[in-house]
Amino acid sequence: MDSMDNSTQKRTLREIAEHVGGQLCGDPDTTILGASTLSEAREGDISFLVNRKYTRQLETTRASALIVGREIPEARVPLLVVEDPYFAFSQVLVLLYGQRKHQVVGISPRAAIAPDAQIGEDCQIHDFATVASGVRIGRGCVVYPCAYIGEGVEIGDDTIIHANAVVYERCRIGRRVLIHANSTVGSDGFGFATHNGVHHKIPQIGGVIVEDDVEIGACSSIERGTLSDTVIGQGSKLGDLVTIGHGTRIGPHCLIVAQVGIAGSATLGHHCTLGGQVGVVGHIALGDHVTVAAQAGVINNVADGQIVAGAPAVDMNRARRAYAMIPYLPQIRQDIRDLQNQLEKIAAALEARPTDSAEPQDVE
Amino acid sequence: MDSMDNSTQKRTLREIAEHVGGQLCGDPDTTILGASTLSEAREGDISFLVNRKYTRQLETTRASALIVGREIPEARVPLLVVEDPYFAFSQVLVLLYGQRKHQVVGISPRAAIAPDAQIGEDCQIHDFATVASGVRIGRGCVVYPCAYIGEGVEIGDDTIIHANAVVYERCRIGRRVLIHANSTVGSDGFGFATHNGVHHKIPQIGGVIVEDDVEIGACSSIERGTLSDTVIGQGSKLGDLVTIGHGTRIGPHCLIVAQVGIAGSATLGHHCTLGGQVGVVGHIALGDHVTVAAQAGVINNVADGQIVAGAPAVDMNRARRAYAMIPYLPQIRQDIRDLQNQLEKIAAALEARPTDSAEPQDVE
Amino acid sequence: MDSMDNSTQKRTLREIAEHVGGQLCGDPDTTILGASTLSEAREGDISFLVNRKYTRQLETTRASALIVGREIPEARVPLLVVEDPYFAFSQVLVLLYGQRKHQVVGISPRAAIAPDAQIGEDCQIHDFATVASGVRIGRGCVVYPCAYIGEGVEIGDDTIIHANAVVYERCRIGRRVLIHANSTVGSDGFGFATHNGVHHKIPQIGGVIVEDDVEIGACSSIERGTLSDTVIGQGSKLGDLVTIGHGTRIGPHCLIVAQVGIAGSATLGHHCTLGGQVGVVGHIALGDHVTVAAQAGVINNVADGQIVAGAPAVDMNRARRAYAMIPYLPQIRQDIRDLQNQLEKIAAALEARPTDSAEPQDVE
Repeated sequence: MDSMDNSTQKRTLREIAEHVGGQLCGDPDTTILGASTLSEAREGDISFLVNRKYTRQLETTRASALIVGREIPEARVPLLVVEDPYFAFSQVLVLLYGQRKHQVVGISPRAAIAPDAQIGEDCQIHDFATVASGVRIGRGCVVYPCAYIGEGVEIGDDTIIHANAVVYERCRIGRRVLIHANSTVGSDGFGFATHNGVHHKIPQIGGVIVEDDVEIGACSSIERGTLSDTVIGQGSKLGDLVTIGHGTRIGPHCLIVAQVGIAGSATLGHHCTLGGQVGVVGHIALGDHVTVAAQAGVINNVADGQIVAGAPAVDMNRARRAYAMIPYLPQIRQDIRDLQNQLEKIAAALEARPTDSAEPQDVE
Repeated sequence: MDSMDNSTQKRTLREIAEHVGGQLCGDPDTTILGASTLSEAREGDISFLVNRKYTRQLETTRASALIVGREIPEARVPLLVVEDPYFAFSQVLVLLYGQRKHQVVGISPRAAIAPDAQIGEDCQIHDFATVASGVRIGRGCVVYPCAYIGEGVEIGDDTIIHANAVVYERCRIGRRVLIHANSTVGSDGFGFATHNGVHHKIPQIGGVIVEDDVEIGACSSIERGTLSDTVIGQGSKLGDLVTIGHGTRIGPHCLIVAQVGIAGSATLGHHCTLGGQVGVVGHIALGDHVTVAAQAGVINNVADGQIVAGAPAVDMNRARRAYAMIPYLPQIRQDIRDLQNQLEKIAAALEARPTDSAEPQDVE
Repeated sequence: MDSMDNSTQKRTLREIAEHVGGQLCGDPDTTILGASTLSEAREGDISFLVNRKYTRQLETTRASALIVGREIPEARVPLLVVEDPYFAFSQVLVLLYGQRKHQVVGISPRAAIAPDAQIGEDCQIHDFATVASGVRIGRGCVVYPCAYIGEGVEIGDDTIIHANAVVYERCRIGRRVLIHANSTVGSDGFGFATHNGVHHKIPQIGGVIVEDDVEIGACSSIERGTLSDTVIGQGSKLGDLVTIGHGTRIGPHCLIVAQVGIAGSATLGHHCTLGGQVGVVGHIALGDHVTVAAQAGVINNVADGQIVAGAPAVDMNRARRAYAMIPYLPQIRQDIRDLQNQLEKIAAALEARPTDSAEPQDVE
């Protein structure tokens, strides 16, 4: 539990075990007041072990209970043994703390709502939010202060638009979508036709479709398509400062980590994972279940299930060994010089001797 | 034509040919309702072929007409043959769809306009926009909701400031400039004088000059200069999440793609193109017509017309071959070991024989 | 002095010398009207020389006085000789121009202030700013238009929140902090538990602590912690478009340049410097006084005082020599082929001769 006030409901370990499933080893009446990391846990906290790197912290943690996987560690406190301890711990967090609660403000008279905008029940539209003409918003949505919802935008139920996020005209946002502060959806694609040295703006007549259950981090930008829509697939999660180019289509359940940039007209299948600062050029296709290591530069199609790294990106194992070798380049060069010198000496030595058939003067 | 409603005016192919020039092969009375890519075109759409990668789509496209270059492909539909098909297609898009239309709202009473601000005719200043003291805005400008125009800023005619964009005090924005949502112009340069381990803020007394016809993408930041102004040259186009350091001067007609970062006091000539995620260190000069490949890191001056890639960036052709070879580093190392082993054996073999003049013991 | 109006107070060189210390060589009554770079200085300006790169400009500068270090250059104008000329010049800038002046607006009736929010004396809360329930703001703070201060946030004295910056609920911001436009503090960490192919959102119950004297550039994002707080240490300065992951702790007096991305649960000691576009993976520790060169990718712990570069990052000197050698990879490969060919010939030559004990057929 961190230093900020996050009121939780007191639970017993038994209640937690019933909620997440798994096998309980230890006193089921142990009181759980909060959840924390091993190193920061206080008495009453439940913690978890997933990353072996932290195993040593079991000796010193003050946690009152632990969620662990099938590989059961030594510990002095009650254990909850589950198949997927990270998922179980996340369920416990939801149980104890819940997701963000949004203040009930109704539709603020200080928001700017177009007369023809349709807003569903139980929506919270904050002060200084703009809901332009032709907008349709479902039930249970929250539009935070200074968010801008452009003309003709459609937003599904239970979607949250955080403060100062901007959705340009005619984009479509699904249900249970979460767009964080200062992000932009539907700004113009980077499309110019250069003619006689002048860059002429190409109208970006496509839009953006953000499907259900997508989350977009802060300060990210999803460009609208030039002709066809840019699409963020169902359940995909984008980090902070991500940019997605015009007409790119990202499949469902992808994880796009912070500062990734994907150029226009690319396609990603489902369940792709792109590490931080990855770049993907335009007009290429990544299959399903593709993983791209942080900072990689992808310039060619990637087949289903492939894991790639490096710039230009190649198979991960190959890249990992190759990039780890770059610091040895000066040594490699020296080795080659040494070999050249040795060979020269040998050649000279051979030349100095009476030969039979070989022609050492060929060797140079 | 995409799934979103973009009403267009019906045209004949003849009208289109008259508008963009070029040679018409096929029925001039063909009706054109919209424009689209080859793969997404519907009956009535005009499409185009520029990238040979898409030639195969000619067989299946449902487009009713095509704009093509001098290298005329086989096709079953009327062709409009032009010098620069991409430019021609962009002109058709403008003809059919036009650029973004801005709602006429006048000067909203819900905007915060300083009494001494001067605003030209036909401007649209939206709710919750701020126009601070001493600001001068030309004719035909649009300032979207929650945009902030700081004290003493000057903005030329027909400039569009999108929602939540921020222009700090005393910056000068030209005519027909387009600044997208959540971008910042004129925030402080990253300037600190470190003294006894403490970083002291250096006042950033320069400003930013954004010349005519510049476009700045979403979530980008142009820092104000420490002493002299940061300049974005006429007609240059910046993508999303770009950052330009204090005092840097970008010449006219440059293309700066998404996530590029240019440090302070750098200069770029005209018609430079920087690919996505490029980094440029401070205090260096890139000439005219310089091209930098995506993700490159430029740490030295670059001469006019040069194309560079890699980090540190070198000549593109050289870089392309070199970086493609990184994955072979483990093989290279193995080859060297093999050579070393073979050489050892040869040296041993030579040593084992009666020698004349050579001294194989030297060879090691 | 730049082209924009920055009114300064006229000073004599004597007054300046008294203010910054140092030794004055030349007429103490020289009038100083402004400050500028060597190349842009006009008569009446004071300038400085730190970077030798600019020494040649001494011949042509129109500056009326110069601040220089102990290595005194030839110059035709009065010199102020100091230990740390860059710091002295920055002091002169503060003396002549001061830091940004903030308009006195009081608490705008057009701001949205929760009834229970506490706001100290001499604060300026602009139009369209939101100060949510439970917020406590110290004395002398400025909250610019459309900034959002979420529920329960605490802000220390003399802190400036620029236009459209967003601080999510329960974050704590110190004194004299400066957060630039369109930046976000406390948005959700990128935390998902993937179960059966679906990414479940993990509540981010930690917060963000931004300590005293921190500056955060424009369009940057600091994520709130999952369990424990994300911390930006006292006096640290972050550039534009920086992102700091959930639970990461940055020590005091660090310099984090533009577009750096640090993943979650990392720790940085004090006085670290990270160059532009650096990436740091999560769960690692950088010691004190660590320097990371631009674009590097740090994937392992870094010891105190180390300077690293490259991706993956290694010791700077080693990296510099190694990366400079990448363009020679094609040559290296050719060298190896040549060696292989030569060796083959030698082996053949040896095989062709009568041998004693060596077995050249082994050599291949």
